[in-house]
Amino acid sequence: MEELKERIRAEGRILPGNIVKVDGFLNHQVDTRFLGQIADEFAKYFDISKVTKILTAEASGIALAAICSYKYGIPMVFAKKAKSDNIEGGLYRSDVFSYTYKKKVTLICSSDWITPKDHVLIIDDFMANGVAMRGLLGIVEQAGAKLEGIGVAIEKGFQHGGDKLREEGYPLKSLAIIESADENGFTFRED
Amino acid sequence: MEELKERIRAEGRILPGNIVKVDGFLNHQVDTRFLGQIADEFAKYFDISKVTKILTAEASGIALAAICSYKYGIPMVFAKKAKSDNIEGGLYRSDVFSYTYKKKVTLICSSDWITPKDHVLIIDDFMANGVAMRGLLGIVEQAGAKLEGIGVAIEKGFQHGGDKLREEGYPLKSLAIIESADENGFTFRED
Repeated sequence: MEELKERIRAEGRILPGNIVKVDGFLNHQVDTRFLGQIADEFAKYFDISKVTKILTAEASGIALAAICSYKYGIPMVFAKKAKSDNIEGGLYRSDVFSYTYKKKVTLICSSDWITPKDHVLIIDDFMANGVAMRGLLGIVEQAGAKLEGIGVAIEKGFQHGGDKLREEGYPLKSLAIIESADENGFTFRED
Repeated sequence: MEELKERIRAEGRILPGNIVKVDGFLNHQVDTRFLGQIADEFAKYFDISKVTKILTAEASGIALAAICSYKYGIPMVFAKKAKSDNIEGGLYRSDVFSYTYKKKVTLICSSDWITPKDHVLIIDDFMANGVAMRGLLGIVEQAGAKLEGIGVAIEKGFQHGGDKLREEGYPLKSLAIIESADENGFTFRED
């Protein structure tokens, strides 16, 4: 998605440790009108008419998933990081190691909201090594739901989490794949 | 907002410890079309034309704030719970005690995204004792920005966090104020 690559080039920053910051429009301040354009772009790649639930993980995926949900008219579900008392019984759980927080995080999702009847589109703002995505896929699998697609706004291609998923046959579409992010700026994989 | 009270009556559940669960449409599974109606309702109470930023706190406020942001055409900012390495320097910080997680949580927000020029509408899905809201107000104050309003979907009136804010003159509008939630169901404060 050319507009997304342009925003990353214009506004993205690169921090030590290959951290890519796009917190001016995607995951701290959020340009929700632009997220609407991203939602329209995903709709070109997935058959939205089949989708019954949009699934994401808290926290930074929620804004994009919410806009997709609103535009498509499909409810969204966000998997929570365990610890809250507000979720009891009937849970799917996926343990993932968070490189952001440098510890194990358990994603949980109530079995009330993803069921074997559901057709799930997973939406996330970012993918690097793909561990959070594996957690979401684990929830879809535990639910016995059908995965209709995985839509990611920005993939860090040089960490290869997306490549492994594609090799395994997962229907993943990332709208901008960063091949390198260094003192020379951003290089994107060709579509 | 009558439709919101009806959804709480129809779908809300009451757990021990006065925990009100509305996780079928607001904060786990999310009915974003309904959030659009909530956004329209807030627009009756606040002068949206003056607002330059919508501010909320991760995680569960993000979906509602994103839909408000999208409908109004105003960027949103979500304050993060401290711990991520992805936010450096130039930060506003507010320490709040989280009753959900039973520990101190520090809300952080980059000074890049809320500035003295901003007119801020705070949006959150839930308010109980108001400590998370105090954290967001602290960020607006540290930024030297102007507070245009506080919009809350559901207030737990019996915990009186909202009452204190109103007594102090804050422009708070909650669309459904629960006065009691017990074996007799939900009772709402009259508008």
